[in-house]
Order: sequence, then structure tokens, then C-alpha cells
Amino acid sequence: MSKSLPSRADNYSEWYNELVKRADLAENSAVRGCMIIKPYGYSIWEKMQRALDDMFKETGHTNAYFPLFIPKSFLSKEASHVEGFAKECAVVTHYRLKNDPNGGGVIVDPDAKLEEELIVRPTSETVIWSSYKNWIQSYRDLPLLINQWANVVRWEMRTRLFLRTAEFLWQEGHTAHATKQEAIEETEQMLEVYAEFAETFMAMPVLKGIKTANERFAGADETYCIEAMMQDGKALQAGTSHFLGQNFAKAFDVKFVNKENQLDYVWGTSWGVSTRLMGALIMAHSDDQGLVLPPKLAPIQVVIVPIYKGEEQLENIKVRINPLVKALKSRGVSVKFDFAENQSPGFKFAEYELKGVPVRLAIGNRDMENGTIELARRDTREKTSMPFEGIEDVIVDTLEDIQKSIYQKALDFRAANTFEVNSWDEFTAKIEEGGFLSAHWDGSSETEEKIKELTKATIRCIPLDAKEEAGKCILTGAPSSRRVIFARAY
Amino acid sequence: MSKSLPSRADNYSEWYNELVKRADLAENSAVRGCMIIKPYGYSIWEKMQRALDDMFKETGHTNAYFPLFIPKSFLSKEASHVEGFAKECAVVTHYRLKNDPNGGGVIVDPDAKLEEELIVRPTSETVIWSSYKNWIQSYRDLPLLINQWANVVRWEMRTRLFLRTAEFLWQEGHTAHATKQEAIEETEQMLEVYAEFAETFMAMPVLKGIKTANERFAGADETYCIEAMMQDGKALQAGTSHFLGQNFAKAFDVKFVNKENQLDYVWGTSWGVSTRLMGALIMAHSDDQGLVLPPKLAPIQVVIVPIYKGEEQLENIKVRINPLVKALKSRGVSVKFDFAENQSPGFKFAEYELKGVPVRLAIGNRDMENGTIELARRDTREKTSMPFEGIEDVIVDTLEDIQKSIYQKALDFRAANTFEVNSWDEFTAKIEEGGFLSAHWDGSSETEEKIKELTKATIRCIPLDAKEEAGKCILTGAPSSRRVIFARAY
Repeated sequence: MSKSLPSRADNYSEWYNELVKRADLAENSAVRGCMIIKPYGYSIWEKMQRALDDMFKETGHTNAYFPLFIPKSFLSKEASHVEGFAKECAVVTHYRLKNDPNGGGVIVDPDAKLEEELIVRPTSETVIWSSYKNWIQSYRDLPLLINQWANVVRWEMRTRLFLRTAEFLWQEGHTAHATKQEAIEETEQMLEVYAEFAETFMAMPVLKGIKTANERFAGADETYCIEAMMQDGKALQAGTSHFLGQNFAKAFDVKFVNKENQLDYVWGTSWGVSTRLMGALIMAHSDDQGLVLPPKLAPIQVVIVPIYKGEEQLENIKVRINPLVKALKSRGVSVKFDFAENQSPGFKFAEYELKGVPVRLAIGNRDMENGTIELARRDTREKTSMPFEGIEDVIVDTLEDIQKSIYQKALDFRAANTFEVNSWDEFTAKIEEGGFLSAHWDGSSETEEKIKELTKATIRCIPLDAKEEAGKCILTGAPSSRRVIFARAY
Repeated sequence: MSKSLPSRADNYSEWYNELVKRADLAENSAVRGCMIIKPYGYSIWEKMQRALDDMFKETGHTNAYFPLFIPKSFLSKEASHVEGFAKECAVVTHYRLKNDPNGGGVIVDPDAKLEEELIVRPTSETVIWSSYKNWIQSYRDLPLLINQWANVVRWEMRTRLFLRTAEFLWQEGHTAHATKQEAIEETEQMLEVYAEFAETFMAMPVLKGIKTANERFAGADETYCIEAMMQDGKALQAGTSHFLGQNFAKAFDVKFVNKENQLDYVWGTSWGVSTRLMGALIMAHSDDQGLVLPPKLAPIQVVIVPIYKGEEQLENIKVRINPLVKALKSRGVSVKFDFAENQSPGFKFAEYELKGVPVRLAIGNRDMENGTIELARRDTREKTSMPFEGIEDVIVDTLEDIQKSIYQKALDFRAANTFEVNSWDEFTAKIEEGGFLSAHWDGSSETEEKIKELTKATIRCIPLDAKEEAGKCILTGAPSSRRVIFARAY
């Protein structure tokens, strides 16, 4: 437990892997690529879920639940969709085990073969649009604004805890609209919701933009995304919102009678964020001592550690601390008073630092005499001796300040690692240092592929706020009218 | 929409099926046995989840997440467990699709066969205990009190919406303890939690008891259960809590060093409730007009329907009603003011009755003049004209009264349909009428099986509060020391 983490500078990747395990966030399971989200990690995910769910409901969405399994034939109905997902599908072929008549233990019963194979959902557009066909007849049935919290499976070959796992948890919104305009507005609205969540709750600045055709969701007309910068300068796609056009409506024959009494195909969107956000959260803020959590998502916001010898000292400290604990709880602060005797204060300090508890208070005999208490901020690791009186307000203010400070720190980091580059030489040099490169591109998939081959950098997005600006593609020199963001990415 | 439901008296089963569909709770999907939980149904499930989750956390449990897939070899490690679940397993055998070289569309790629088949979890004891092996070394790591909200799959041949589906949603608690006594106490505590939830939130009285060996969970030493009576007199098992002894600890070699510094196997429990509770909720209270929901689980507790002609009347009503809506919301009441113009008040009345909204208010021009409002209770279908002034308190009181009344009604119904029977003739006659039969049984699995064969009645439980009482088995006449509860069951 007390062995220190690898440092970010020495080995960023190892630092991440170790941190996820040591902070008790997640671990690998016996099933290839599937993770176990441990209680501490799950409690952070629950806070994310609650905040997102509230935001979805405030924007008029309701939750529902659709089947885990998708008939193979459904997946095939939208051509580019099956093309995108066929290579990574878990396939259910049988529905029964039996005892091996030759004594080989339990085997798959060959007599229990499914007529049609079932795919464990990699995403639910197909099964949901096949239902929407029955739910939508008229414009009065629209818009249909549904979200689902679910597990999905994509059989990835190279997996990493939270960032890329065969099974992951996510939410997927699936909406249906009467007009193209309304569907585009929904797509954009949900991108805004994601960006607001990332910035307000995760304290993680994000770039909002549009994906190139190469990086578009399989079955979408347009994919919007939010992209965040991790501390190693790599990009992480944190959420996507897809304008599906009429693609799934056509694949599943979902038509409606519009206000003009004409039959038309329905317009669709889908949007999702996943447990990948846990990886983003960890990498955006944490340091070589462990997690740094934004107070809004920290399962424990404040920990109080007494330093004492003997029962009597502890009892005196409890008399002073218990009312503070109660007062903080009544203000909605999640607080833990850890007076366990079998661990030293030093052990506890290291443990809560590893777990990213934003504010730590320590109180010992001298503090008791002087009417003081020591307050340590996790983000800056600053320790200050404070008057005990009035500490409650200081704590609440400090939590707010930490939330803002770590956002600002991440924003400054991104600013310091975003560069406008105007030549291929500049591009290839800068990309090795990490960060976002704002550069001109000629708009062709071939050029994009070529740049990726040469530098491992991909176009993260065409920023929504990109200005019109005449320029030349960094690779081909062909004309370009605005800059896009390149980076190496998770 | 306006076609009336089949009546319970005419066809109870058809009444249930139609009600589930018409009230927009759930529907069958294209995948055999898998349901779609529609937004209205899901919002009730969310309320159940929230209440249960709070209760689990109050009793010291935390949530975590374990993989969807279980290696086939894991399932086989506990002998009676695999015996119980092997016949209904969805089996993943491949991890990729590909284009048929013969032009037959997308097919399973024969080159992507898994080395070991994966079972879609029917329950998670095996995958969880294989992790607990790494998490538990010493008594200091105990107790481990973990719950998981998840989907599970059991390939049932005959399915019914909510009551028995191939995929269902549930929670499964999995705890590990240092002593047998502590594990039994946990098992009993969680049964109490389930009983309290059923009675307090669902307004559904339950019998608490122990299952016979025949009906025990595959892998448990003892299964505790809560059993509820539906309106057709049949029993429904609403939740189970299992004392697992050291069975899974032995199967997965989970040992710990106890306080006496000796190595011992860990003691376990598991406990679960599922979306089956939705079926129980529907059948416990609803009537021939539709759902009757307990206010504590109703997504909409109060609906207000204005009866008006023209914009001006509506505006006047809004001026009066808007402050009431606001006041109710601030008291935590979920209220909908439905002034949609495209549906008649009569249509709305029928719709909200079908959906089980506990309290309906209607206000028209005469009410506006007289300072009155009409209040209709869903449970009794009584309508009363009330002074508008003070209606807010009346509504809050009425919601509380409905919660109590429907519980009392269900309790009275159960009392009126529970019979002590003392002879085989009495038993066979009474069982045809439905209800719970309290009878003596000789304690043997053979007799239990025989009774089931002859009457389709099973032993629902040996009630926890059963008195010692000398008697004779209704079938064999052999001596018995206490009565058990027989019923036909869902």
C-alpha cells in the first residue's frame, strides 16, 4: 500500500494503470477485457450518473430499457452500421449447457442452438429503431426523447481499464424528430449538456467540434464530440452526439404522418458517454501522489483525522469534531471522521491523498489547546493551521475553490499545450511533444489517413468555433478555409 | 386506447397482459423472451431502485460492478449451482461477424471462436467470489458488503412481461463475513429490508419465511423469502435472501486469517429483487380500470385537469392553479397540470386512471365561481367537491391515506384468503379457490413433490413466525411440528 506510484514523468501509462488499481477504482477480471469496477470507483461513477441523469431529465428526456441482445439480422439493416461493428461483436449461439456424456464436465448443448444468432449490443440503435417503428405513427408521437443506462460490449483486442474495455457501462440517448432542423438542434443541445457536465462537474475543459467523415459514428450523417486534453498532451474523446439523418428510419421503415398529412421518414439522433469518463477524470487532474478529484464528484469531500494518544484525548477531540461533522452534513458536504485506531495518521494521510479526498483536516492535542485545526488541500497539497472557529465556512469555500482551481489549472495546461502550426516540419516536430495542433487540412480523407500513418495524429475535431481563415494544408499545401485540431489520442 | 380492459374476473391473466401494455409499462421485443421497459414503466422501476438503494446504503452496503460474462468453468465450480443454472444459459461462443464469402450477408466468423465459452450471467456468485478470493486475506477485510445493479439472463421457455423474462434487471447483494452467525444475521437483515420496502413503498404485505430444500437457491444452505398474495389468490415470490454457508468460499478457495490467527473459509450471503416486483406491484393493487399505484412509487402523484371553453377560461384557471402546482412541488409532490388542448377531459380522466395516478383534480367554470375543485381518488374512485382553499393540505393527506388504504386493502384480502386446512379433502377443495393454505407437512421432499403433482400447489415458505404445533401431514398423516404455507404461484 505504501509503495509510491510510478511518476507521470517517468512512465505516464504505468502511472495511470497503477493509480487505477491502488486507488481501488477498478481491476481486470478473469474475463478478457472486462473490468470490475470496485466500490470506490463505482461511487464516483454513481455521482456522474446522477448529475447526467438530472441534466437529461431537465432537457425533457426519460429513461427506458431495451434488450441486451440484438438479432444478427437487425444489425445488418443499416449498411455502414454493421460495417462499423461486425468486427467486434460478442455472439450468442446457444441457450443451454449440459453434462458431457463423455465425462468432460459441463459443455454447450449442441441441441440448443439458436435459429438466429444474437449479438450482445455494442450500441442499441437497431433494436431501438425497430421498436420506434411501432411507437411512431404521427407527428403527435414526436419528438420521442429517450435515454437508456446500460452495459454494452465491443470485443476490443487491446484494452485498458476504463479507457477501452470489452464491456463498459454507458448511457445512450436515442431520439426521434419530425424535422431535420429539430434533430440537429437536439444533437447540438446534447453536446452542450456533455460539455457543461465535463466542465462543471469534472472540472475538465473540453473542445466542442465535429468529427471528420473518417471518425464519424457508423450510421450517422454527422458526429459531434467533446475532446479533452490529458496531462500527457494526448486527446481523449469524452462524449459524442450523432445526427443520424433518416438513416435508421429508412433501415427500419419508421415513417410518420406530418402536419401536412404527408408520410415521411423520421429524423434521429443518438448520443452517449461511458465509463471512459472515469479514465478522463483520473488523467485530467491526478498527480504522482494519487487521485485529485473535483469536489462535485468526490465520494468523500472532507476527511477529518484525529492525532491523539489514548482514549481520553480521542474523546476530547470527538466532543469538538462531532458537531462539525453534523454541521457539514447538514450543508450537504460528504464528510468522514476517521478515528480508526489500527492505522497511524501518516498512513491515513497517504491513503486519502491516494484516494483524492479534496480536503483533509487534522486535529491534535496542541490544536485542541490553541483552538486550531490543520486544513490540507489535495489539489495544491498546501497545509494551513486555521482557527477552529469558523472552519465550517472555510471548508465549504475551499471545496468551491478547489473545484474552480483544478478547472483553471487544466484550462491553463491546455492553453499552454495548444499550438498553431503552419508547416509540415513544425507539425512533425510539435506532435512529438504532445498537445493539440491547430492546423490547416485540405478536407480529404486520404490526407487525413496519410497524416495519421506518418505521425499517429488524428483529427480530433473541426472546432465549432473555428474561424474562417484562408490557409494551406500542412501536408499537401492544398487550400483550406479553416483550421482543425490534430492530436495523438486515447 | 379507449377500449376497456378485460376484467379480472373474466380473465385475470389477460387483464394483466393487457394492462401492462396499455398503461405503457412494457412490451415484448423482437428477441424471444426479452422485454422492453417503456418510459412510464421504467420511471416506476427507478423509484423502486432509488428507495432500495438508499436502504442498502443505510445498512452499510456499497455498489460495485462485475462482468456480464462468466467463464463456463467458473459456473461449474459449485456443483449444485451449475446444476441449477446450466439449463437456461445464454452462451457466447464467438467474438466477430464477417461478410459471407458466398454472398449470404453477415455471418459468424468461424475463425473467431472463443477458447472458452462465456455465459451471460444468470446471477453473479461465481464471478464475484472469484474476485473476493483476491480481496480477502484477513478478518480486517471483512465484512465485505457489496451490491450490484445489473441485467441478468436466464433462458426461460415460457415468459411473461415482468414476471418471467429471459433478460431482467435486478440488484444482487453479495456479502462475505468472518462468522456463520454474522452471515446469518446479514441474510435476515436483508430479508427485513425487502419486507419493509414491499410494505412501506409497494403497500404490499408479505409473508417472511424460509424455503424448503426443494425451492432453495442453487448453492445456498438456506433461502429466506418474502411471499405476496396477488388478487387471484396466487402467490408471488417477491425477494430472496440466501445464506450461502461456506459453499462459494470453498468452490473459489476464499480463505481468511481470523482473529485467532487461524485460516478459515469465509461465510457468504446473496440477496436479490428484480423487475419481477413490477409485476407484483401491478397485480397487488390494480383494478379493471387500470393501474392503482401507491403514491410513494407513482411517477405522477397528482394530475390536475382543467375543464374549460376558450382561452380566457383556461387563463383564469391557470392563474388559480399555477400557485398550487408550485406549492405542491415545493412539498415534494410530483404533480402534472395537463391543459393540453387536443384531448378531452374525459379522455384524460380515462388515461390517468389507466396509468394509476393516485389523485386527480378537476376544475371547471362552476368550480371557479364557487371556489371549489373536484378531487378523485384512484384507489376508491370516489369523487368529492372540495373548497379550493386548503386543498394543498387535503392533497398531501389524501396521498398518505391512499398509501395506507391500499396496504390495508391488500392485507385484508390476504387475511380473507388465508385458510388453515387440516385434511386432504379440505386442501384439494380450497386450493381450487386460490389463496394461502396453512397446513401441516411431514417435512419430506417426496411429499412436497407429490402435493405439487396432485394440486399444482407448492410450499411457498415455512413462515418465520410459525408457532410450534403438533399436527399431521395433510397428505401422509405423518407427524409435523408446525404449519407451512401452500399456494399456487407465479
